[in-house]
Amino acid sequence: MEIVKPDSTPLADKLGPVAILGVGLIGGSIGLALRNRNAAKSVVGWDMDRSALQAAVVRGAIDEAADTAAEAVKQASIVVLATSNAAAIGLLREIRPSLPPDAIVTDVGSTKRSIVAAADNLLHGRFVGGHPMAGAETSGIGAALSTLFVGAVWALTPSQETEEDTYDRVVALVKAVDAIPYRCSASEHDRAVAYLSHLPHVLAYGLAYTGGEAVPEDLKGLAAGSFRDGTRVSQSRADLWTEILLDNSGPVIESLEGFVRWIEAARQAIGSGDREALAALLSEARRARGRFPR
Amino acid sequence: MEIVKPDSTPLADKLGPVAILGVGLIGGSIGLALRNRNAAKSVVGWDMDRSALQAAVVRGAIDEAADTAAEAVKQASIVVLATSNAAAIGLLREIRPSLPPDAIVTDVGSTKRSIVAAADNLLHGRFVGGHPMAGAETSGIGAALSTLFVGAVWALTPSQETEEDTYDRVVALVKAVDAIPYRCSASEHDRAVAYLSHLPHVLAYGLAYTGGEAVPEDLKGLAAGSFRDGTRVSQSRADLWTEILLDNSGPVIESLEGFVRWIEAARQAIGSGDREALAALLSEARRARGRFPR
Repeated sequence: MEIVKPDSTPLADKLGPVAILGVGLIGGSIGLALRNRNAAKSVVGWDMDRSALQAAVVRGAIDEAADTAAEAVKQASIVVLATSNAAAIGLLREIRPSLPPDAIVTDVGSTKRSIVAAADNLLHGRFVGGHPMAGAETSGIGAALSTLFVGAVWALTPSQETEEDTYDRVVALVKAVDAIPYRCSASEHDRAVAYLSHLPHVLAYGLAYTGGEAVPEDLKGLAAGSFRDGTRVSQSRADLWTEILLDNSGPVIESLEGFVRWIEAARQAIGSGDREALAALLSEARRARGRFPR
Repeated sequence: MEIVKPDSTPLADKLGPVAILGVGLIGGSIGLALRNRNAAKSVVGWDMDRSALQAAVVRGAIDEAADTAAEAVKQASIVVLATSNAAAIGLLREIRPSLPPDAIVTDVGSTKRSIVAAADNLLHGRFVGGHPMAGAETSGIGAALSTLFVGAVWALTPSQETEEDTYDRVVALVKAVDAIPYRCSASEHDRAVAYLSHLPHVLAYGLAYTGGEAVPEDLKGLAAGSFRDGTRVSQSRADLWTEILLDNSGPVIESLEGFVRWIEAARQAIGSGDREALAALLSEARRARGRFPR
């Protein structure tokens, strides 16, 4: 893993024509960011949902709407897959025959091993997996923002197949939307985000359910900031998160097991009134948080 | 439980002299809020930590610093205990001989049964337990804000001993700092906040520790918004939270057990690839969150 310094690969030229497949929160925000900055020659969009696609035109997230994914990529220099992971793997097959010879492909999915493996097979070096660490609990083109990625880390997971030029062009795309490229392997990525994104989502859903069931309606107004923050991402789409957790089940289960071990230790200390043990657990955890940026 | 409507008990007169024992984040913010609004005849402060007490004078959170807790309450109409719960119970004994006959006492602690029981014994009707749902992960007089309580719910837990006049005067104090009084019993409060504040804190500490240990330093930059929000309150003071969790151990353990049951169900579904079961758990949790205000 290395952080690519903002000045190490200057955004010399405007990006060529960009195709965005899937114009929801992430795809729509990429389109808005590129068009607001005039960073791409053109932005063509496609979405399974025709009304979302029309909304993307109206919002100015894309220049043009294509009827099919294959048609969208025909003139593209960079193709961004911004659908669910399963759909993205299907799209790789669908668009391959229509891709111009020098076009490259990237994606924005929350897990990287499965799509990178599929793309290595299908695209031989013209793919880099990507994951902007800048989602939101909102979804859809209506929630898209041209500033969604400003200052956010954007993981890039080139494989041994990936050509250096392909990687550089995706770095340029990431920089064009003011995000910070963060290079690591697909498996490093998937294990880290199990702990840093997937586990927090599972905890948020679990806290929302547990509090919602146990606390009578007339006392729910006592919900404090810690509950609001701790459950914010439980408002994310359940279907997408079902897919993410299943696609990354190994690392996610490892993270859940580690987490439950800590909870059991805390419960022991609380149940037995062991002040010293509990204070040590909390202090250690407080210090652990301090080792993260921000 | 009932929400006292903002207009049901008008803040007719200025509050009399207020004494604040403990001028940290909460006590300091109460002082700032009262003085900025010119809502109290005077605000006298005391703190075990002399430098915090001096800082409270400099910041304008109190008019005057007292040398002892007993001295601080001598002229008071309303006494606010804004220390840890254990210290507050000790202070009740210490100040009782010096309290003017018509002075009333309230506190701001995160648990209510233990202090209400102690106060019922010592003050016979002149005490109302309080808990502003507006903390922060910061602490100390330096973090105090005159606006900390604006629009926040402030739980009030009168007991059968509490005189109606005592209750009304604490409601007036709460309204004076622009918070919303929320009446419930001490045991209703303690069970609800176990789920809505104490459980979220335990989860935040556990997530911080688990992520901090498992993720290599050079991948910690992948921490997403869900991790930041989910661990925010792990920066709270470990000593205070040790005390809160132990003081409310029964309801906290109940909440941890309920939470771990949900996590085990989620782990089962993820481990066995049961898409339908996992989607149902997440959707149900998402709906449960929707039953909370905001």
